[in-house]
Amino acid sequence: MSKINTAPLSGFMELLPNEQIAFDQMLYSIIETYELFGFRPINTPIIERTKVLLAKGGGDTDKQIYRFKKGSSDLSLRFDLTVPLARYVADKQNNLTFPFKRYAVGKVFRGEKPQAGRFREFYQCDIDVIGNETLDLSFDAEIPAIIVRLLKGLNLDNFTIRINNRKILNGILEECGNLKVSKEVLKALDNLEKEGIQTFKNRLEEILKDKEKVNLLLKFISLRECDESTLFCELKKLQNKSEVLKEGIFELETVVKEMKNLGVDNLYYEIDLSIARGLDYYTGTVYETTLNDFPEIGSICSGGRYDDLTAYYTKKKFPGVGISIGLTRLFDQLNKKGLVDTTQETKTKVLILQLDPKFRKETLVLAKELRERNIATETYSDIKGLKYANDLNIPFAIFIGEEEINSKEYSVKNLKTRQQVKITKGELFEYLSSEI
Amino acid sequence: MSKINTAPLSGFMELLPNEQIAFDQMLYSIIETYELFGFRPINTPIIERTKVLLAKGGGDTDKQIYRFKKGSSDLSLRFDLTVPLARYVADKQNNLTFPFKRYAVGKVFRGEKPQAGRFREFYQCDIDVIGNETLDLSFDAEIPAIIVRLLKGLNLDNFTIRINNRKILNGILEECGNLKVSKEVLKALDNLEKEGIQTFKNRLEEILKDKEKVNLLLKFISLRECDESTLFCELKKLQNKSEVLKEGIFELETVVKEMKNLGVDNLYYEIDLSIARGLDYYTGTVYETTLNDFPEIGSICSGGRYDDLTAYYTKKKFPGVGISIGLTRLFDQLNKKGLVDTTQETKTKVLILQLDPKFRKETLVLAKELRERNIATETYSDIKGLKYANDLNIPFAIFIGEEEINSKEYSVKNLKTRQQVKITKGELFEYLSSEI
Repeated sequence: MSKINTAPLSGFMELLPNEQIAFDQMLYSIIETYELFGFRPINTPIIERTKVLLAKGGGDTDKQIYRFKKGSSDLSLRFDLTVPLARYVADKQNNLTFPFKRYAVGKVFRGEKPQAGRFREFYQCDIDVIGNETLDLSFDAEIPAIIVRLLKGLNLDNFTIRINNRKILNGILEECGNLKVSKEVLKALDNLEKEGIQTFKNRLEEILKDKEKVNLLLKFISLRECDESTLFCELKKLQNKSEVLKEGIFELETVVKEMKNLGVDNLYYEIDLSIARGLDYYTGTVYETTLNDFPEIGSICSGGRYDDLTAYYTKKKFPGVGISIGLTRLFDQLNKKGLVDTTQETKTKVLILQLDPKFRKETLVLAKELRERNIATETYSDIKGLKYANDLNIPFAIFIGEEEINSKEYSVKNLKTRQQVKITKGELFEYLSSEI
Repeated sequence: MSKINTAPLSGFMELLPNEQIAFDQMLYSIIETYELFGFRPINTPIIERTKVLLAKGGGDTDKQIYRFKKGSSDLSLRFDLTVPLARYVADKQNNLTFPFKRYAVGKVFRGEKPQAGRFREFYQCDIDVIGNETLDLSFDAEIPAIIVRLLKGLNLDNFTIRINNRKILNGILEECGNLKVSKEVLKALDNLEKEGIQTFKNRLEEILKDKEKVNLLLKFISLRECDESTLFCELKKLQNKSEVLKEGIFELETVVKEMKNLGVDNLYYEIDLSIARGLDYYTGTVYETTLNDFPEIGSICSGGRYDDLTAYYTKKKFPGVGISIGLTRLFDQLNKKGLVDTTQETKTKVLILQLDPKFRKETLVLAKELRERNIATETYSDIKGLKYANDLNIPFAIFIGEEEINSKEYSVKNLKTRQQVKITKGELFEYLSSEI
């Protein structure tokens, strides 16, 4: 009988109620920020046709996906919220107002090998702005402003948003030569930190066989150290034939200028010409966000601009820009570091303790009256309720016994301060409303 | 390329943003009510071991379940929130405070044949109170009080909660004879409405072969017509040997008395001795709730008391009482009847229209200042924004052009009343705060 394993599956987060309250609070706070910037909710199914999810294919997606047959249908669980958004926009394009600013929060599934801090079921909290054929660059600037507000709302204040534009690296590579060369240069770039600048230089000479181009790339790499104004100035000097490079510089400069107008303090962001966020998806602005005190968590909020969201589903072009937060992992990491306040065990504010069965009616009537005033209330039919209230950190206890009924005054105890007062019903409502 | 079907799967609800806002509002309202009565959140995984979900087995569950293999694991999607609760309580019993009042809202999955009003993926919104070995009857009375508050919160005011106690019918059957006889009597009862009272009487005579018992059952059936006080009085007269019947009457009477103290108006409930809610699960109080104007929707909120939640997972006994609302179906039905307000397209309160590119900075700074005051704001870089604002029912538009900048006064238009005012920044914040 008791042979069934009752633990949740490995890689699936399952919280106690106090942790769940803290998790939900983070989730609501994120939604609040998204709505403050005009994003509108959608909620797509967990299950999709496999054909839809794997239309793009490639990467680890095929291996990680939870895929199954039901009847003759080939179905899978969504592995992100972006592919379902693409299907949604393709499907409902005639019923949507563009620019379509949508948020989505929900569980996604990836059957990865379980490892520390990795989840197979996790919440993503996404926003995307989708344009109909075109999308103003100003939305690229709004994203960092949202991230700042969002993280401050989660009481995270020490973070860096790294921002770049994919066209800059693409443009530099274009200045250097053909596509085959680009791939080898990218590989060399990837190994730069590991192998050091001298090896990198040797590699480049081998690949490019052109001193000028090697110098261009070395100069580009050295820009990482520059401050913002020098960086743009020097970047422009590198531009020669590549229109892509020119565009990239213009876009990044515009976005940064708009960010400043939107009040994004330069404490919170950094131009980082090295970030790319995958080579085949993003086409313009890209973002990564790290907590400065906990770099080991990695990027907690990433995204970027893409040219065509719905390429696999419809001929019309829908460019977009967006970000995603993996909330399950973020919560888990912060919780393990003791950075999440999990002391709230319940939303209940008052526990009414009925000291004698004969006062049942008075107890229930008072509970009703408190709830009518939107004060979350529970009742307990004996003094053991005091332990219950303490276990759940309920802030107030009201005692109803012989003495209270006779004097028509309630004993109200603040369970934190241990202070107790005796007050009439009229005073009680006022007292609780002001204290809660 | 465009061969991929982008419609959501049949049986899966997918809403436009305005409908989603209305849906989410219902969901939040339900959660608010649950928290007001002291329920605490849990959120279990969508995926469970098949062994856990099918521990009980029987019914249509096996056929309807979404089941698949991942590696060597036999997994399934949860088909309700009760079985995962049972696993959760069994697993975490030493870390929970009892009585454990928990709520859960989330998607569940049943691969039913698609038919009107049936969903394969749908939200359940559940509460249960779980006791450790015992659970006070008072929680059975709290449930209808919660249902009343909850439905009023959803602007549904014309409904009936039907309440019964399974022990009463069980007790009557006990008075009638052995278990085999009971099954046949239940079958006859099931056909009563279809076949009429005379056929029913003939059947009973065949089965029971005892005039007195036949009369007992006929008397019991006739009680359906009685008012509350007569009903309890007459029910007690039927009780002879069966302790179960005695218990059932006592429980139902106690629950109804407590409900009255909790302020449950008798407009909203009805004792209905015929409801059973499935024969093998509930063991005491049972509830069904119907909308009086729309009986065709069926029960929108049902549940009851069960003796042992975790029978399949642990030896310890955890009795409970709870209800479940199938929100997806309820929303869908109300929406189709035009009873859901879906006019809110966005939470955005203000759209700032920048009439000239040179006022970009002023536009973005004002947007920032409004958001800092928690006023959901969007910006639009030309006059076409007015169409956007109208399409999304955004209540206010602020114009920033030459005139506004020169006079240091903003033009603010209430897009509902078409009224326009010119006010300073200081006045603007006051005006919007009071109008929103």
